[in-house]
Amino acid sequence: MSLIDLSKHVALGIDIGGTTTKFGVVNHRGEVLEKGNLSTDAYATVEEFIDALYEKVHPLINSYGKEKNFDGIGVGAPNGNYYTGTIEQAPNLPWKGVIPFGKLMTEKFGLPTTITNDANAAAFGEMLFGAARGMKDFIMITLGTGVGSGIVSSGKLIYGHDGFAGELGHTIVKPGGRKHWSTGSEGSLEAYASATGIAITAKKMRAEFPESMLSQFPEESINSKTVHECALKGDPISIEVFRYTGQKLGEALANFVMFSSPEAILLFGGVIKAGDFILKPAKLHMERNLLPIFRNKVKLVFSELDEADAAILGASALVWEK
Amino acid sequence: MSLIDLSKHVALGIDIGGTTTKFGVVNHRGEVLEKGNLSTDAYATVEEFIDALYEKVHPLINSYGKEKNFDGIGVGAPNGNYYTGTIEQAPNLPWKGVIPFGKLMTEKFGLPTTITNDANAAAFGEMLFGAARGMKDFIMITLGTGVGSGIVSSGKLIYGHDGFAGELGHTIVKPGGRKHWSTGSEGSLEAYASATGIAITAKKMRAEFPESMLSQFPEESINSKTVHECALKGDPISIEVFRYTGQKLGEALANFVMFSSPEAILLFGGVIKAGDFILKPAKLHMERNLLPIFRNKVKLVFSELDEADAAILGASALVWEK
Repeated sequence: MSLIDLSKHVALGIDIGGTTTKFGVVNHRGEVLEKGNLSTDAYATVEEFIDALYEKVHPLINSYGKEKNFDGIGVGAPNGNYYTGTIEQAPNLPWKGVIPFGKLMTEKFGLPTTITNDANAAAFGEMLFGAARGMKDFIMITLGTGVGSGIVSSGKLIYGHDGFAGELGHTIVKPGGRKHWSTGSEGSLEAYASATGIAITAKKMRAEFPESMLSQFPEESINSKTVHECALKGDPISIEVFRYTGQKLGEALANFVMFSSPEAILLFGGVIKAGDFILKPAKLHMERNLLPIFRNKVKLVFSELDEADAAILGASALVWEK
Repeated sequence: MSLIDLSKHVALGIDIGGTTTKFGVVNHRGEVLEKGNLSTDAYATVEEFIDALYEKVHPLINSYGKEKNFDGIGVGAPNGNYYTGTIEQAPNLPWKGVIPFGKLMTEKFGLPTTITNDANAAAFGEMLFGAARGMKDFIMITLGTGVGSGIVSSGKLIYGHDGFAGELGHTIVKPGGRKHWSTGSEGSLEAYASATGIAITAKKMRAEFPESMLSQFPEESINSKTVHECALKGDPISIEVFRYTGQKLGEALANFVMFSSPEAILLFGGVIKAGDFILKPAKLHMERNLLPIFRNKVKLVFSELDEADAAILGASALVWEK
């Protein structure tokens, strides 16, 4: 029996998004050795998508010493189910129904495949390679086009009885509040704290306060980046857009803390570029809504992973978490 | 080495309340073989309390074959910390600060002592002996004078990094809403769905709608029992008090489900005597606020444990959970 040379062992991390799928070869130190991507929605069926992925990935597998050096494949996908390896009713993916994605991948690649949703994968990535190293209890919140989450308790992801736990973006922060453009729910965190939600808030404020710097931009061009630019130039309305967003986020975070009492909450995604404009009010309103026993204990921190690689790292981390 | 006769093995369950402490000897089948109680607040120090408890309990320990048949002591107490065995800053107990209760008990009784908060103990009781037998993911909500909770995920209680997870009664269901009489928070679940909260709602409704049957009672006598009596007689205002309570509860439950995706939510405590008056609107508003993937999956059930014994059973279950 020969010793296994861990330094040669790698995993394949795959992040499936609505339009683009990214993949990469990752080693134990969390270094992305190779990466590439392909279009998610250019194929008629999931089988054709997997065939195309295989064509791109197979040369990498060969160049890293074939399957023997690959510990497995980790996949982060919207509505990915850790228990069953399926992708179920994902509204933003071209494949409808319940897709046995893990099974199809294993059959094609001859490697064990682990799946979870994209936010859970991001949480794994932080735990193995990022700001949550050494933490056993934390919550990861991804603030992008939507709001996702991964909850780690006693060192384990919370999956719930069906594999779908951790949809914190869809918890209601303002009952009867803003109607969600896709789910129809009223007052969800995602309706306020996602980039989409921030754009809605900004457009409303721009209409109400024409003196705002935001009025210099055509309405359709208003997004969280525009708001950030105006806030940096001191526009009080743009600053208020982020303050309001931070308040809603902070109120939601307080509820999350009283649920699982994490050591830290990690924030990730495009929205956090707004930095203290959002973080300060979020922290203020989180603390204000906490019971005294939870106050001034929870760290509110930004992800340490490079945004371009985080999804691949998170997906590959799934392989080694098992 | 002789075989251990499990049928003789018992645990001591202790439930510490603000005024009364209950204890009982429990066997593996969840039968309370002996029980008793003593006053929690009649002793100057925690040491004197433990001495008094020992005097009452010691004869029981002797009669059940001394310490050798006792697997341990389980304690449910407000702000009981599972990790440290301490009771910390419990507002309703006579002992202030951080009390090393587990250590003191073990020194006095010579038995291993496990502590958690009262709602977590109730969840253990349901898992070992009650409606949650065989479940790995459920949430227990106790609706009494206050609202407590215990969250079980993958068969384990969620304690969080500091042992204080699961304070769902203090999550905010209506930001800026009703001020809590004790914590000062605004719009917490406890402010609406506890017996105390129901009495507040009922008094407000009684003042606003003098035609209500509730007006036949003096204001100070209005409590959830009065409201239940009037609701049973068909008083629409009393029915509305419970409907509103159920709505707030249901909205909160939807958020809890999207956090940990439990198989069931178990309701326990005096408030559930209102039955369908609360359960139906709670179910309606829970489902209404859930993402489609969670709908019509979560059972909403009442505890199966006898209320008089549940706290003792839950505390004793702690001994065998370990």
